[in-house]
Order: sequence, then C-alpha cells, then structure tokens
Amino acid sequence: MPNTEAPLKRWNSIPFTKVRMEDGFWRQRLETVRSVTLPACLEQCETTGRIANFHKAGGRADGAFEGIYFNDSDVYKVLEGAAYSLMLKRDSALEEEIDRIIEAIASAQEPDGYLCTYFTLQAPDSKWTDMEKHEMYNGGHLIEAAVAYYEATGKPLILEVARRLADHYDATFGPGKRHWVEGHEEIELALVKLYRITEEERYWKLALWLLEERGHGHGVGRIWDIPEWGPPYCQDDVPVRDIEKVTGHAVRAMYLYTAMADVVHASGDPAYTAALHRVWAHTVERNMYITGGIGPSRHNEGFTEDYDLPNETAYCETCAAIAMAFWNHRMNLLFGDGAYADIVEREMYNGALAGISLSGNRFFYENPLASQGGHHRVEWYETSCCPTNLVRFLPSIGQYVYAATENGISVNQYVSSEAELELDLSGKGGGGNVRLTQTTRYPWDGSIALDIQPLSGSAAFTLRLRVPGWCKSYRASLNGQALDEARLVLDNGYLVIERAWSAGDRVVLELDMPVEKVRARDEVEANRGRVALQRGPLVYCAEQADNSGLQYDAFSIAADAVFATTHRPELLGGVTILSGRAADGTLCRLIPYYAWDNRDAGYMQVWIREATDRRLYRA
Amino acid sequence: MPNTEAPLKRWNSIPFTKVRMEDGFWRQRLETVRSVTLPACLEQCETTGRIANFHKAGGRADGAFEGIYFNDSDVYKVLEGAAYSLMLKRDSALEEEIDRIIEAIASAQEPDGYLCTYFTLQAPDSKWTDMEKHEMYNGGHLIEAAVAYYEATGKPLILEVARRLADHYDATFGPGKRHWVEGHEEIELALVKLYRITEEERYWKLALWLLEERGHGHGVGRIWDIPEWGPPYCQDDVPVRDIEKVTGHAVRAMYLYTAMADVVHASGDPAYTAALHRVWAHTVERNMYITGGIGPSRHNEGFTEDYDLPNETAYCETCAAIAMAFWNHRMNLLFGDGAYADIVEREMYNGALAGISLSGNRFFYENPLASQGGHHRVEWYETSCCPTNLVRFLPSIGQYVYAATENGISVNQYVSSEAELELDLSGKGGGGNVRLTQTTRYPWDGSIALDIQPLSGSAAFTLRLRVPGWCKSYRASLNGQALDEARLVLDNGYLVIERAWSAGDRVVLELDMPVEKVRARDEVEANRGRVALQRGPLVYCAEQADNSGLQYDAFSIAADAVFATTHRPELLGGVTILSGRAADGTLCRLIPYYAWDNRDAGYMQVWIREATDRRLYRA
Repeated sequence: MPNTEAPLKRWNSIPFTKVRMEDGFWRQRLETVRSVTLPACLEQCETTGRIANFHKAGGRADGAFEGIYFNDSDVYKVLEGAAYSLMLKRDSALEEEIDRIIEAIASAQEPDGYLCTYFTLQAPDSKWTDMEKHEMYNGGHLIEAAVAYYEATGKPLILEVARRLADHYDATFGPGKRHWVEGHEEIELALVKLYRITEEERYWKLALWLLEERGHGHGVGRIWDIPEWGPPYCQDDVPVRDIEKVTGHAVRAMYLYTAMADVVHASGDPAYTAALHRVWAHTVERNMYITGGIGPSRHNEGFTEDYDLPNETAYCETCAAIAMAFWNHRMNLLFGDGAYADIVEREMYNGALAGISLSGNRFFYENPLASQGGHHRVEWYETSCCPTNLVRFLPSIGQYVYAATENGISVNQYVSSEAELELDLSGKGGGGNVRLTQTTRYPWDGSIALDIQPLSGSAAFTLRLRVPGWCKSYRASLNGQALDEARLVLDNGYLVIERAWSAGDRVVLELDMPVEKVRARDEVEANRGRVALQRGPLVYCAEQADNSGLQYDAFSIAADAVFATTHRPELLGGVTILSGRAADGTLCRLIPYYAWDNRDAGYMQVWIREATDRRLYRA
Repeated sequence: MPNTEAPLKRWNSIPFTKVRMEDGFWRQRLETVRSVTLPACLEQCETTGRIANFHKAGGRADGAFEGIYFNDSDVYKVLEGAAYSLMLKRDSALEEEIDRIIEAIASAQEPDGYLCTYFTLQAPDSKWTDMEKHEMYNGGHLIEAAVAYYEATGKPLILEVARRLADHYDATFGPGKRHWVEGHEEIELALVKLYRITEEERYWKLALWLLEERGHGHGVGRIWDIPEWGPPYCQDDVPVRDIEKVTGHAVRAMYLYTAMADVVHASGDPAYTAALHRVWAHTVERNMYITGGIGPSRHNEGFTEDYDLPNETAYCETCAAIAMAFWNHRMNLLFGDGAYADIVEREMYNGALAGISLSGNRFFYENPLASQGGHHRVEWYETSCCPTNLVRFLPSIGQYVYAATENGISVNQYVSSEAELELDLSGKGGGGNVRLTQTTRYPWDGSIALDIQPLSGSAAFTLRLRVPGWCKSYRASLNGQALDEARLVLDNGYLVIERAWSAGDRVVLELDMPVEKVRARDEVEANRGRVALQRGPLVYCAEQADNSGLQYDAFSIAADAVFATTHRPELLGGVTILSGRAADGTLCRLIPYYAWDNRDAGYMQVWIREATDRRLYRA
C-alpha cells in the first residue's frame, strides 16, 4: 500500500524514446505491433470508413457519415501509435500514409476550429447538446496524436489542427462562457499534454476548469434521464475534489483520475491529492481483479458494488486496463511511490497485454478471468477502442521504465534495455548524461543487473530501484558487495542508493520470484475457496489446451500443492509454465494469463478451486 | 499433508556414517559437539555423581545413590553420543574413558540382569512397583548406547550388558508372565534397535507386547491416583491401536509413536498404521509450534488442548523436538512420504537445534517462542535429558540425509556431503555402490547439485529428491537439460528420476527460497493478527540485540512488508539475516530462531504483530 502521508514528489516522466529495448520480452512484442498490429488497424480504419469520414467532412469525398460518433478517435489513436512506431523506427512509407490522413483530418476542421466528423456531416445543428456524444473525447485523442506525431516528425500540421481545436474549446467554454461536461473524459489529460509541448498554461487551466465543471449539474443530454444511473456512469455525480469512490464507466473514470493527477502535478491542490488517494484505495483495494482488470459489468462497462468481481462475466475492458496504467504512471510520478508502478506492471504483463494476440492481429475487448471456451479473439470491433488503444500503449511502454526524481533516477520497470538519460539536478551539483543498461530475463527471472555509466566520468545522484509489491524478499549488491541491511530497507517501495557513480558501477538486484498461491479477500464471493497462481508479475491460468485431463472448474488443487517452473522457449512465444498436481493427482499446467486463447478454443480459468486445508501454518 | 492412502513403503534407514558432511552448516556443528558438548556432558556426568552411581551399585565405591532415579539414562545417552562421535572420528582417549564407564556400568548389573542404580542402591525392594520410576526407560537408553558403541568399536561388553538386561525383561514380562507398562516410553524403540543388530525377533516382539500392554489398566503406581491425569500423561489411557489424539507428556508420546512406527515396519499391522496416521495429523495439524516444538505446558511437560500454543510460556522441551524428529524419520521410512522428512527438517533447523548454544556448552530445556528477556541458556540441568539428547542427536544427523527405497535412493535432506551408498535392488537388476555428492549452501540457498557416480560405471535406479513442504516452486535439470513438466510433478513430496545412471550425471534442483510470512490457523489464539517469518527451512525471530529501536511486542510489521536477505558470515557463526521495516518505519532485523540467546540477554519473539491489511489479494 502506498504511503499517503508523504509530500508530493512530482517526478518527471522520461520519454520512451530514451529507452531502447534489447532482446527480450518486450522487443518482440513491439516489433509485432509495428509490423502487424499497426498496419492491420490502419487497414481497418480505411475499410470501415473511419478515414473516409474525414474526407467527406472536408468536402473531398461524397457520402454520409459512416459508423459511430466516436469513430474519429480510432483514427487519432492509430496515428498516435504510428507516431510512436516512427519514433522507434523511421518508416517513410508509413509516414507518407499518415501525412495523407492528417491532410484529410485538417480538411475536416471547420473554420472556427471545430472538428468532429459526425457532427459536421450528420448533425451540424446539434453540437454541444449531448455530453454523451464524445465531441471532446474525439478532440482529446486528436491532441494526443498531434503531440506524438509532432514529436516524432517535427511536422507542424496536425499540431496546428489540434491547437486550433483546443483554442476553439477555450474560446467557447470556461469561466463566463458556456458550461460543459464531457461525457467521456479524455480531453483533460490531452490538454495537459498540449500544455507541456506548447508551454501554454491556459491549456492545463482549461483542463482544470473542465474537471471542476463535473458534479455541479452542468451535464446535458439524455444521460440525465435516469439521474441515479447516468451521472455516476460518467463521473458527473460529485465534484471531483469530493470523490470518495470509483463509479461508472471504467475507462472514463480512469481517464478522469489520470487527468486529475496530471493537473495536481501542476497545481499541487491538496483536495485533489486527497481525492486521488481515496479513489485509488477504493479502486485497488475493492474493485480490481488480480489481472489488473477493472469494471466487472457489461451493463455500464464499469463498476458495480465493492468486491463484486465475478470471473466468467468479468468485463474488464482492455482500454480500462490500459487507462489504469496511465493513471498509475501519473500517480507514481506525483507521489514517488512504487505501489503505483506495481499497478502499471500488473497491467503491462496481465490486464492490458491479454488484450492482444501473440500474432498481433486479434484482440479482446473483454477480458474475463474464466471462460468455458466461448470467448475468442477477433480482428476488429464495431467499437474498436481497444485495438487502437493497444496500438498506442504498447509501442510507448518504454516510458514506464524510468522516472526522473528530485535527485536522480527511479528504475520503475525491469526490461532488458539501454537508456541514455539526462540528469537534471539543478542546484544540486549533479547533472550530465548517464547511460543505464539493464540486463535481465524479467519477467521470467528476478535477477536484474544494472550498469551505470555517467558519460562525464562520474555523477552524484540517487538511484531508486523498485522492489515490486509481489516480491517478498530480495537482495542486492553494488559492484559485487552485498549492500548492508540498513541500505537495503525500502523507501516507499524503492531500494535507494545514493552515491557518486562512476563508469563500471554495477548494481545487481535479485528479486525472489517463487510461484505464489494468491487468495482474494473473503468479501470477494466469486473467489471463496479458490486460489490464483502468480509468479513474479505474471498471473497464471489453466487453459484447456494444456489440460485435456481436467474438466473446466471440476478440479481443485491442494492447499499445499507445489509447482515446478519450466521455461518453454517454443511455446506461446516463449513462456515459463507451471506444472503441479491437481488434487486428484492429474498433471495441471498453467500458462501466463496474457498468453491465453492463442491456440484452439477451450476453457480458461485463473481462479482455481482449492482443496480443504488442514495445515496449522500457511505462508 | 502426507498421502495416508498409500501402501506401506518400508524404506530402510541409511547409517549416518555413510554420509560425510563437507564444509557447511552441519560440519561446524558436529565438530563443536565432538570437541565441546560431549566433553562438557561427560564432565557433568562425573561431577554430578551420575557415573559414581554405577561404581557404587557395582560395589566399587561407597555411598548412597545421588540424584534422580532416571539419571542413569544421561550417562547412557552421553555414551551413545560418544559412540557416534567415535564413528565420525576415532579418538583413543575418549574411547578409553568410555570403556572405563562401561566397566562401571557392567559392574552395576545385578546377577539376574537387572540394571538400574537407583533401585539397586536405594530401593532394592521396590522394583517394578511404580511405572513412573523409569526402570525400563533407563534400560532403553542403555540398549541404544550399547548398539551404538558396539557399532562404533566392535567391543562386545556393553552390548552383552544390554542383552542381559533385555533378556531379563523378556524373562520377567510378557504373555503368561508379569504385566508391565513403562511410564516413560523408550524401551520399545530400543528393543527394535536391539532386534536389528542381533536379528533376534523376540526383542521386537517384546517391544510389541509392551506397546500392547498400554491402555488396559496394567499400569501401577501413584500415577493412577488421578486417573484422568496420570494415564493420559504416560499414554496408558487407551490401547495404542485405538489412539486418536496426542496426549500427555510430549517426549513419552513421541517415543511411543517412534516405537509404533518401528514395530509396523516389521509387523505391517494396519491398525497401528491407521493410529499413526491419526495421531500424526492430530499432532502436526493442531499441536505443533512453527518451530517444530511440541508440548506447550510446563505442568505435564506436554500437550493440553488443540491449538493451545502460547508463545511466552511454550514449554517445547528440546527432547520433544528431537523425539519428533525420531518419529518422523520412522514415518518417512515407513510410508515413503516427504511430508515426514519435512518435520525432521523442521526439527533439525529449528526446534531441536535451538536447544544448544553456538558454543556447544549451553542449553535450553524449554524453548519458548517469545521471551521478555528472562530465558537464558545454562550449562546443565538437574534433569539434564536435553543436553544428553543433543549429544546423541546431532552427531547422528547424517542418518536423515538418505533413505534406501524399494528401487533406489531417496534424498531426504540437503547438506553438502559425500556418501557412498550400497544399492540393494534384489531381483531388480540393479545393485552396486553409488557415490552421491551434494553441493549446496543449504539452508541459506535453495540450489542443490547432486553428482551421481555408480562405482560400477552405471546403475539403473530411481532417485527421489524431496521438495520440502516450505517450498512452493522449484525447477530441476539433469545434465544441464531442464526436466520436462511431467517428470517434475511430485510423487508424495518427491521429484522422481528413474534412469540408468552413469558417472558424470548431475541433477540440479533449485528450490525457490523467498522469505515467507507465515500465519497460523485462526484457532491459535496466541497468534491471531501475527505473522512469523520463515525462509527455507528456517524460522526467524526478532532479538533485542539486533533491534534496539523496537520494544518487545510493541511493534508490528505491515502485511505487505518486504524483507531483504543478507548473508552475514561474521554473525552468529554465519547467518542470513532478514531486514525490513516495522510498521513505524524502524529497521527490523531477524535472525534464525536456532541462533537466539547467543549474545547479551534480551527479548525474542517469533510471532510478530501484523498491521491491518487492506489488500484485496494476498499470497
């Protein structure tokens, strides 16, 4: 659990482009996203008319709006993902294709800056009459795409379009102007991004104003027909500074909290800070699946009652898992606590990653924790937010690896990688560039070697190494010497080494990574008498393909069952599997949850029945 | 939990003399026992008149019996320990000293074979009138010493004395002769040892008869004054085949069950088998401390109510922990289940080992799991059964390392050692000698390399490697190749490798050994809201010497606290310590329980308060 008493830390994000993934778990996935997922999503945006809508709105093509009013956002998200891919690897053919799409987008912008092809084409007189119509949601994704593409290429067009749109919002809404509550949050965090790249403070202040609009009855549209349902659904039921509990649509809630954390990073508002601590605890301690999935209900794509976490019907939208990573990344930066990076990790390796096939071209929108065999990946959805969120989440995953702290560097995620980071220790005598090289087989092994090479020969700074929440014990050495126990004790989830570093310094962190039998709080009815298997950051599941001898949910494992781990490089892209005995003696094999449904259709379950336990002591 | 449905395995013990301890955890302890503990105990037996009683009884010296009626047994136990030390390392001065003591013992034997100096000197007319007077208990220890010394030296005198005594028992008691129930069991297991070395079946049958005498009202003496107390105290309340629950004096109960297991090994009696399964479950699942300590009460040096396991007042006699190892070793041989070897291990590294100081000359009779600082080791006790039990237990610890199975070898304990074992695979085409070399830093590290060298070049047999109950996950390789998962699945707690072995074969077993926070069943009132720390086979404790900043029982640790492990070769003979934060942020250090009270007096606690846990999932 994070320390909620600590003062704000306000660490800074380090761009993923600083982190070069080396061979290992993530590099192969990033390559798949670039070569398979991105082209597939672009192709879908073409064939489903999503891109055509821009041409039509810009008068470059004839025809009516096609699809759903939020479809513009998918194009923007694919553009954002394309920008990240271009940052990782230049690709002039891809860039030309994106440039053509951007021209279409620019053509669709109305003279006053308004941009939303659904309203331009289909309902030009109904703008800003229904909070649920995703006008600013679309706009937010345009802004995120614009910032990314500008950073990737330096080309100004899309950023100009985005600024005109933001300026249009700013001119229309705000103190003394019109009220507005956007039904699906997204614009707020996007405006903070825009502020950061433009350094125009009014953008983050508009974000703040939009946050402050919520919970005061300013929402408009049909959503108010059932007041006890609609306002909580889109987090318009209470002022954000009074939030106590996570409610409603999971992705919206997460984007809201992400923006709140972004705004606190600038404002420092203690009421927001307190609200964030409250809602984080409420989300993580009562409403999160072990996979990091959130939002159990299909009905509202979101939250229900505390501890209501059914497995087969778990909705757990992929977007919500990704958004949970977004939020927790900001929380980590804001408060400097490893507990938030733990959640980022949980999403990276479980809840979010399960949303995409190993092949990169099949997706889950919903991520149940158990299936009788009827839940399968598909290539696209009518509402295809999840594939297009994966396209932008995965290539940028390197941003979660490091953070720039007040006095050095925080190592938040363990991936084999090389990074060149600029130390900004103004007034502290430090500074200069440092090369950090991580060598590890994570997540298959808990040993991480970190080579530190200050490019100026030496540099005094504080290195923080996250000891993940799943880890119960560890050891560490500096240049082959075990750290003494006082130095090994954690500070808000981090091992802290303060030192004048010089070239050749090596820290080795060894995280014990046994198989753990995890149990849910008794309040979670669905999991009573059940265990889940976890090893390191990975949640495991039993899939039919590996367990022909076991019937779905008809087997149990003994409370003192023990599991062997075997790394199988040829299986599912290379996975460490667990094998042990079911209580009836049958061999039971488990694979990482993220890797399920990549073979023949079949059952899957994360939470497995546990045989009665008579033991007096249990770890 | 062991498989209680499996048929009897009847494995055979492998003498500890076959196992040469190499540098590591045990070798230094065995050396200390040989050079310090044994001479100190011999000296105490001299200065307290224990040896003089034999001279007096033999008419070689004048004077009255000194001490308590069971004091002969201490001399016998030191002799047994001396015999084991001589097996490990010849020492002619020691052997001469023992020979002199044996002559005194022989001189004290009455013409009919009777031997018990208390009765000979002080109450010759009261023999066999009070079951509580330890007559056969003393005799049992003589027999054990005799077998050991004969095996060590080949000198027949003490074995002849022992046989005369056993023959005297056999002539006096038995079907058609006198009834007898011995108040403190020990003779029964000793008679089985005598049977094994002499191959005279009447000895184990006398043991069986003595077992069968219990629970039928044949006991005599004051112990019957309070029938609801005395008979259960010495396990004379129910026939042994009807035993449901562990009762009474802990050491007596354990010696009884040890003998029952020994007898079943010969008889195969299913009623005994069932009773053993019942009483084992009752002992281990409801009445054992995490240290392996048993018998919470000083009042009866034994058992009380189920789950009554107070910490500060835990009696946990050292002898009871040793006896628990004796019993569980037999259970392992009988049933071939690793769960029993787990208990042997628990006693080896915790409950029994805590009874002796690192210096080898200070002891605990009682082993509480918490002390405010008033519990200290002493050099000797008036009732000094514990030091003299350690003197025989520790040098022979190598006997627990291997067992001879029906088709090969079982590796039960992990110690750096070299062993030359004879394979007895009659009718199975195997046979011949095999050299097994274990290389490991156990108990500090869970990696064990086992080199197998059949001395005849190759040998087909089954190797069983125990995966300890504390271990939740592991992996294994054979000649550098990971075993596939079907082969890795355990059989009654063992990894099983069937193979035609040849020189150069190497099995590497890696047991994950993280720090575990262990919780007791809720029924254990003393431990509600508390955790104990365990790593591998070692239970840890917080001792005042390492924790000046923490007050006794006034601190707690967070439910998600994480611990660093540091190996400190200079501390307490070399220990891996755990360090983490108490809930108030203070550094908390823990040392292995066995190593406590080897520095300045101070508090100690195994079970530590745990701060409230809000987590949704817990491993």
